[in-house]
Amino acid sequence: MAVDPPVQHVVIIGAGFGGLAAARDLASAPFRITLVDRRNHHLFQPLLYQVATAALATSEIAWPIRYLLRKHKNVTTLQGSVVGVEVQERKVLLDGEEPIFFDTLVLATGARHAYFGHDEWEPFAPGLKTLEDATKIRRRILAAFEQAEWETDDAERAKFLTFVIIGAGPTGVELAGTIAELAHDTLRNDFRNFDTRSARVVLIEAGPRILSGFSERLSAYARRALTRLGVEIKLGHAVSKCGDAGVELDGVFLAAKTIIWAAGVAASPAADWLNAPADRAGRVLVEADLTVPGHPNIFAIGDTAHVETADGKPVPGVAPAAKQEGRYVAEVIKARPRGKDVPRPFTYKNAGNLATIGKRAAIVDFGWISLKGRMAWWIWGIAHIFFLIGLRNRLAVALNWLWIHTSGERSARLITQGEAKKGGIKL
Amino acid sequence: MAVDPPVQHVVIIGAGFGGLAAARDLASAPFRITLVDRRNHHLFQPLLYQVATAALATSEIAWPIRYLLRKHKNVTTLQGSVVGVEVQERKVLLDGEEPIFFDTLVLATGARHAYFGHDEWEPFAPGLKTLEDATKIRRRILAAFEQAEWETDDAERAKFLTFVIIGAGPTGVELAGTIAELAHDTLRNDFRNFDTRSARVVLIEAGPRILSGFSERLSAYARRALTRLGVEIKLGHAVSKCGDAGVELDGVFLAAKTIIWAAGVAASPAADWLNAPADRAGRVLVEADLTVPGHPNIFAIGDTAHVETADGKPVPGVAPAAKQEGRYVAEVIKARPRGKDVPRPFTYKNAGNLATIGKRAAIVDFGWISLKGRMAWWIWGIAHIFFLIGLRNRLAVALNWLWIHTSGERSARLITQGEAKKGGIKL
Repeated sequence: MAVDPPVQHVVIIGAGFGGLAAARDLASAPFRITLVDRRNHHLFQPLLYQVATAALATSEIAWPIRYLLRKHKNVTTLQGSVVGVEVQERKVLLDGEEPIFFDTLVLATGARHAYFGHDEWEPFAPGLKTLEDATKIRRRILAAFEQAEWETDDAERAKFLTFVIIGAGPTGVELAGTIAELAHDTLRNDFRNFDTRSARVVLIEAGPRILSGFSERLSAYARRALTRLGVEIKLGHAVSKCGDAGVELDGVFLAAKTIIWAAGVAASPAADWLNAPADRAGRVLVEADLTVPGHPNIFAIGDTAHVETADGKPVPGVAPAAKQEGRYVAEVIKARPRGKDVPRPFTYKNAGNLATIGKRAAIVDFGWISLKGRMAWWIWGIAHIFFLIGLRNRLAVALNWLWIHTSGERSARLITQGEAKKGGIKL
Repeated sequence: MAVDPPVQHVVIIGAGFGGLAAARDLASAPFRITLVDRRNHHLFQPLLYQVATAALATSEIAWPIRYLLRKHKNVTTLQGSVVGVEVQERKVLLDGEEPIFFDTLVLATGARHAYFGHDEWEPFAPGLKTLEDATKIRRRILAAFEQAEWETDDAERAKFLTFVIIGAGPTGVELAGTIAELAHDTLRNDFRNFDTRSARVVLIEAGPRILSGFSERLSAYARRALTRLGVEIKLGHAVSKCGDAGVELDGVFLAAKTIIWAAGVAASPAADWLNAPADRAGRVLVEADLTVPGHPNIFAIGDTAHVETADGKPVPGVAPAAKQEGRYVAEVIKARPRGKDVPRPFTYKNAGNLATIGKRAAIVDFGWISLKGRMAWWIWGIAHIFFLIGLRNRLAVALNWLWIHTSGERSARLITQGEAKKGGIKL
């Protein structure tokens, strides 16, 4: 009589786009799957800047991970914080919980912002990766306007009304455009002691142009569109200092009470856990099948992995890439017990590159065609609603956008997790 | 030639139901009005329990105060924390800002939960008054289920799956009913290591019945409806201890990791600021025209004031009462410069008393008629949507409720402002 082989235990760390895609695709096979994440929710990061700028509610772009996997009875979701991996003993070490043993491990632990050796800048210039980051940035932006309303000295008030965004990739551009709209349009009638349109939004980029991932033509269009919204763009300027009073650009000080960091990311410490080779951003240099060198049962995907396309370019750290990698890894893991070799190494299929500039313009690059302006904005909007999970959130986000476009109002202008205190409003 | 009299400056402290109603009604008169609140938002407290139980997003029940008053150019809104009033010099003292001088002052500073001399219980048994309270309680409820999923010992797990609500007024009943639905319905398919239906929801009330503000018949109905939802009701039990492991009831210990306080409120320190006579809960004993005794230019309204109806009963601490008082005070203040006496003392018009038990039952008492069950639930729902401010939030809340009722899903199941850490999930 044949004995059933023991059920293979696949452990996935991280429920971002990559980890979630892997879990869903693996769930159809007879594995035992455990998905561990520090958070209880999967986050739709591409719209996080809209939470930071008071357009969307936190719950409209986040879903409980276990809810998304509720129908897959072979998947257990655990909220916990991974602190290491013991490769030989095949166990994942957790903060405050017993270790979890694995047969196969998928590391999809994502990235955090990187301050290029200036971690001391973080308190003054928060980055945007989590819901807490988003509500913190929202609080700082709105509280700056609140403090400006108290201020009687014009020079002091100007500091509260200067918003600096460092880094002109998609997130920096989206934030700058939306903050400019907030100041020049949404908040226009709400203050008595100053004109919100006097606010300055300054976008700082060390490189020679904004949105350098796009063609020069689209990048130039985006620059014009941002300028039309009132954003000041400073190209070729590196920030040399960052503090509670402002930033220093090539020796020149710019006074600003609100600074946002959108300049760089670093991978999570997964490479350190494995003692694996990594690129400068800390991403594991994986094999062609996305396994960690020397560890055929450990995979790294998404922002945790450095993957190259056929022409030697790195696969970008975007949601579609992470999803494709998650699905690919699931395919590899499912093929193995059947004795099949995986037919081909991972290949990245570029689904297109999108960025939006305020609520009326966007740029879209599909490779075979590129678009800008209103039409691109519609493609951007429809694509983002399509990729949201679940009908309810699609309806809610569509309703919110419709509302913002017709009324100019933003519904989530809340200062929370901080209130008025000695010396002003708590940041 | 006649000289215009100087414009009277009315300062309102607090933008709850009372303060906001006063500001809106006063804005039509030629006053200069300043509205100060510690928060930047007005909160629809009657639905706060739905944020705490993951049904609604924070932004669906809160609006920026200055946005609500944007069309009244004679109203200035300031976010700041009042620390005292100098009655003789007619100035309001603020934390970290210059004082504000007033001709007329309206104190609408609301209430906080009261622990009847046991303030040390607060960390273990948070109350529900602010958006932060609501997201904290939501985090604790959801994190308790997350921790139960890790737990291997049944007795330990039971502690995480026991939810104690202290106080069976409307808030306690609404929380207990909704947490029971969450455990027995919403979360049913989402966990692998235990059955969420094994969760216990215990509602503790020191008095002889729940919802004592209603008739015995409606109260008995509510009790049956709650019991049907699986809530254990303990009447005539006073909590004698409260800690991180549970509560003690008349000497008997009940192990529970999640405790919520819904037992009592105390007024803000406004009476202390004025050195004015107050009742036991700290509410100012105001005159028939809602002025503070001896200070005809200072009013107290809402939860800050102890007001009695014609038959000597205290006016309840509910939104309609605060609104009526705010409007009345505006009428008094507007009548004075015209040399008119206010025709009559304040009278409270009872608009009806409503409470809901889960998502299918409610009780409604209009005085001339009382209702229970489905029909009452519809009245409750329609009334609450009607009293929300703005079409957008009405649509958003209605959409959410429709979704919850048809799918059983709750959209705001987010654990935020706290993540997994040493020894479990941060609370």
